[in-house]
Amino acid sequence: MAKKPDLDDYRVPYFDGKKFKPFNLASVDTAAKPFSLGTKDQDRVRLSELNAALDQLQEKLHAQRSQRVLLILQGMDTSGKDGTIRGVFHDVDPLGLRIVPFKAPSEREAAHDFLWRVHSQVPAAGEFAIFNRSQYEDVLVPRVLKQIDQEECERRYRQIREFEAMLAENGTTIVKCFLHISKDEQRARLQARIDNPEKHWKFDPSDLEARKLWDDYRQAYQDALGATSTQIAPWFVIPADSKTHRNVMVAELMARTLQGLKLEYPPAKESLKGIKVE
Amino acid sequence: MAKKPDLDDYRVPYFDGKKFKPFNLASVDTAAKPFSLGTKDQDRVRLSELNAALDQLQEKLHAQRSQRVLLILQGMDTSGKDGTIRGVFHDVDPLGLRIVPFKAPSEREAAHDFLWRVHSQVPAAGEFAIFNRSQYEDVLVPRVLKQIDQEECERRYRQIREFEAMLAENGTTIVKCFLHISKDEQRARLQARIDNPEKHWKFDPSDLEARKLWDDYRQAYQDALGATSTQIAPWFVIPADSKTHRNVMVAELMARTLQGLKLEYPPAKESLKGIKVE
Repeated sequence: MAKKPDLDDYRVPYFDGKKFKPFNLASVDTAAKPFSLGTKDQDRVRLSELNAALDQLQEKLHAQRSQRVLLILQGMDTSGKDGTIRGVFHDVDPLGLRIVPFKAPSEREAAHDFLWRVHSQVPAAGEFAIFNRSQYEDVLVPRVLKQIDQEECERRYRQIREFEAMLAENGTTIVKCFLHISKDEQRARLQARIDNPEKHWKFDPSDLEARKLWDDYRQAYQDALGATSTQIAPWFVIPADSKTHRNVMVAELMARTLQGLKLEYPPAKESLKGIKVE
Repeated sequence: MAKKPDLDDYRVPYFDGKKFKPFNLASVDTAAKPFSLGTKDQDRVRLSELNAALDQLQEKLHAQRSQRVLLILQGMDTSGKDGTIRGVFHDVDPLGLRIVPFKAPSEREAAHDFLWRVHSQVPAAGEFAIFNRSQYEDVLVPRVLKQIDQEECERRYRQIREFEAMLAENGTTIVKCFLHISKDEQRARLQARIDNPEKHWKFDPSDLEARKLWDDYRQAYQDALGATSTQIAPWFVIPADSKTHRNVMVAELMARTLQGLKLEYPPAKESLKGIKVE
């Protein structure tokens, strides 16, 4: 019988404080479906169960109002960041979820350190926030476009590690997912947007430019993941050629993470006992 | 045959620029269900249809990226603001919805004019934002607690009208809903929270204090609604003793509002024709 898949098999080895361990994105098959139960229908049923479980867990997180949860989603263009948010958190109370998309920095944002706009959006007590792109854009894009050198890039890795450690020490649980698709899958998804005029609004011609730099972006991701996967803010590589599998796996990961927080409704208030509202 | 219910029958008469028309909240029955199709099951089916329609409409709003939509929800404690957001917008892509709760102002917020914190949260092009409480708190609470006099209150009504007009002139569609419950219904809902220890975290003892001032709050609402219902930012009174009916009615209103915007996907880009992704 096959070994039950373990989420930790998809965790990027922790940065050891000096040099990151050799980590090769190619070791994870983008088309793998380790968390599939078999058929797509079975996976959809499982996803529904997880959708509902996440709803319950989030309500407790909110009720308890002490812990903070942050999910960071990164991935190449078309890797499915938007689809993951919708597919995984569909049943979570929209009041309990804060989704923060980070685009190219505005002039005002660019006039600050790269963590400034990110810090202002981190989750408060009882909040569940999802970053759709994040501080990691600033060790990917400028590196590939050669706007920063290796030294600056390493400095930013360290700044990110220290920033995330500070958040964790102050009660934030951080999970980071890299949505891992193949170059072929990206071609198919971009082509589908081009071929369907109703999807043209989703198509950004600069995606074709970025695609030409696929290998550079991939290397930049591999290095960044290796240098910033830590015990308090681990990176997980999610095989994401299959959308259904991707959603199941991220949902499993987040359900496990929230279950690990031992969330409980706050204790009943004795002072309310017997009160009759007039 | 009964007249088909018309949403405009529940619109607060527009402020005429000088003195607001006599408007009496008591003229709307909190237990009415004008938009019910008959049974609760039928209403749930209708609500599902509207949930899906709102999802489609929001996607077009987002794709078109030109118009902005703002829904303001107000109502007494327990009137169902949270439940409305969840019940009506359950199927809308969480990416497309920004929910902004306004609580008692922080020290920093209170150090600014009362519109400052609100302005920073208004929807951008393509966004659908929901204010869970809003600038209206500042013509309700301080008035009831006698922290501002009638003159200041009238000044704020005007400032709100002018602020909302500015937003509308700059492309924002504003709809405001007052969730209208009876004092008895509030008693039942507060009592339910007290009687269920798992719901104690939702119970705020200050709600009982506010309940003692029910008549004052009701008068403050009535005056504020009358003074700030305008063509570009109308108030609707939603009979809200029935949660299902409340959701159906707000969903009908928002679907009608979005349909009225004639949202369309942006035209296909000719430049993309025939492109093959490498």
